[in-house]
Amino acid sequence: MKVKTAGGEQDVRALWFEDGELVMIDQRLLPRSLGTLRYRSYAAVAEAIRDMVTRGAPSIGAAAAYGMALAARAGEDLGEAAAAIKSARPTANDLFYAVDWMAARIEEGEDPAAAADRYAEAIIEKCAAIGRHGAHLIEDGHRVMTHCNAGALATVDVGTALAPIRQAWREGRRFMVYASETRPRLQGMQLTAWELVQEGIDHAVIVDGASGHVMRQGVDLVIVGADRIVANGDFANKIGTYEKAVLAKELGIPFYVAAPVSTFDLSTARGEDITIEDRPPEELTEVAGIKLAPEGVNVLNPAFDVTPARYVSGYITEKGILVAADISCMGVDAHE
Amino acid sequence: MKVKTAGGEQDVRALWFEDGELVMIDQRLLPRSLGTLRYRSYAAVAEAIRDMVTRGAPSIGAAAAYGMALAARAGEDLGEAAAAIKSARPTANDLFYAVDWMAARIEEGEDPAAAADRYAEAIIEKCAAIGRHGAHLIEDGHRVMTHCNAGALATVDVGTALAPIRQAWREGRRFMVYASETRPRLQGMQLTAWELVQEGIDHAVIVDGASGHVMRQGVDLVIVGADRIVANGDFANKIGTYEKAVLAKELGIPFYVAAPVSTFDLSTARGEDITIEDRPPEELTEVAGIKLAPEGVNVLNPAFDVTPARYVSGYITEKGILVAADISCMGVDAHE
Repeated sequence: MKVKTAGGEQDVRALWFEDGELVMIDQRLLPRSLGTLRYRSYAAVAEAIRDMVTRGAPSIGAAAAYGMALAARAGEDLGEAAAAIKSARPTANDLFYAVDWMAARIEEGEDPAAAADRYAEAIIEKCAAIGRHGAHLIEDGHRVMTHCNAGALATVDVGTALAPIRQAWREGRRFMVYASETRPRLQGMQLTAWELVQEGIDHAVIVDGASGHVMRQGVDLVIVGADRIVANGDFANKIGTYEKAVLAKELGIPFYVAAPVSTFDLSTARGEDITIEDRPPEELTEVAGIKLAPEGVNVLNPAFDVTPARYVSGYITEKGILVAADISCMGVDAHE
Repeated sequence: MKVKTAGGEQDVRALWFEDGELVMIDQRLLPRSLGTLRYRSYAAVAEAIRDMVTRGAPSIGAAAAYGMALAARAGEDLGEAAAAIKSARPTANDLFYAVDWMAARIEEGEDPAAAADRYAEAIIEKCAAIGRHGAHLIEDGHRVMTHCNAGALATVDVGTALAPIRQAWREGRRFMVYASETRPRLQGMQLTAWELVQEGIDHAVIVDGASGHVMRQGVDLVIVGADRIVANGDFANKIGTYEKAVLAKELGIPFYVAAPVSTFDLSTARGEDITIEDRPPEELTEVAGIKLAPEGVNVLNPAFDVTPARYVSGYITEKGILVAADISCMGVDAHE
């Protein structure tokens, strides 16, 4: 992704390998400052994933892959390294997938750092393909809405939901992006808006509750990411996604989900089978360490919601734009 | 409303007249502390309204009425007092209505403080009637959702959307209230939750974007307030209301608007004729003085949205529960 600097702009990824070290943008500092941290051991990488230095399932996967490479280069026990890295976060499937994939590559004798680079490059290439397929949906003058951060920060580079937006903008089309702020953690205002500012893409941040009002005023397209898409096309994504899908249907606005094929989980039949993680109440009741809610308040903080497939116009993947009926035809090799 | 104190609980209003002074809860301090401020002059009251010491259209109206009483008791020019108080806030119709109503009562020779008391008591009695009519909708075990703060703080006492909830609870029924936090100003988390905690009513605060998810899990009833209800039944209310109305329709959940007859504006034909106020971007980008958004971010901050009448199951008023077709039969005397 482009990042504005004092001297102009430079091309930056969420994380990369350099001089035997994993370098990661510290996303906890954004949007206030763009700083990086450097890691020399798998244990430090696991801790960084736990502490959310990087976030977003594909970025977590790439960090895990480099963590395995660091372990292999240091001649450490790969079984122990795999267990430690996998324990860093409980949800992101990419974390487990990346660790196992790296263990297999190392066993095959591939150079560990080269394999991790290949893993990260594959994510970026898939995102770029999502961008090329999805960019056709965006026309000059369009108003496009997204939610949370499914951008370069979440996917090493390019993004999923932001990939078609970046691509259409680079192809010269001019349009408006509405980014809902995405309470409680404000990834829309703090990360997506930051990426859009860096690229100079026209945008407006709105509160989540204004999504319906703005859509009713006139939105041409909604594109969101996904954490998991199951066999019947139902999908889990950041809390607030389901509302936008219902509003889009009510108002006749196309609603697209952008995700690589690796996000499809064919072993789960329906959305009802997806467990929704409840997160700590402090994510709502405190902002920047300041307590905002009254004593004695009760809070419910589901991190994700599930949107039924019937609200989805299409799934923008690296293989093209699919409809729900296509998903069951993906077969068991979807992850390769 | 009940308020918990060190010694037990006491009954408190948003504002009242005492020893020749207007006393108001300083709502800017809630939920951290319950403090009051005292006012001896209309000029100080006008400034307090401007500074949002009290908020909510009916509470603003009552404060304005007491401001006129203070001006009359001090023998000040009532025309000047009326102009100064009316200039305090631009939107709330109650502000202008209360000032004119007081000027007429004073001209008729009524004691100014007694007239202002009568004005405030009338608001409370209307809210209590809304509570009695609306309480029938709430059954044991129900899950009820509301938005923003249409509670006692906004209406001197009792509330509009919160009135049926209070009444049903006092009648002994036990149910769950979901309060959406209501970004950007968090009146749901900071004021509605505070009122519910004071009354000991079971509740959970959720982010606005979780409303659809929670409704889909099972909500029996949505009750919101209104800033203005026009002749065809369309109504304006806090941003985020329209989304809940659409979701309620999609999920088959009854959706009620609670408001006194004085909130109905029969001179406006349709919702499209209501102007939506855009408020400053800092309401989103800063919380408690801390800047959260990136440099260069653009923000759209509409304070209200308009919900079409077709989404409304009924209007809970002091005269009973109305449907949209009843509104045009109210006639021109609706405000008396």
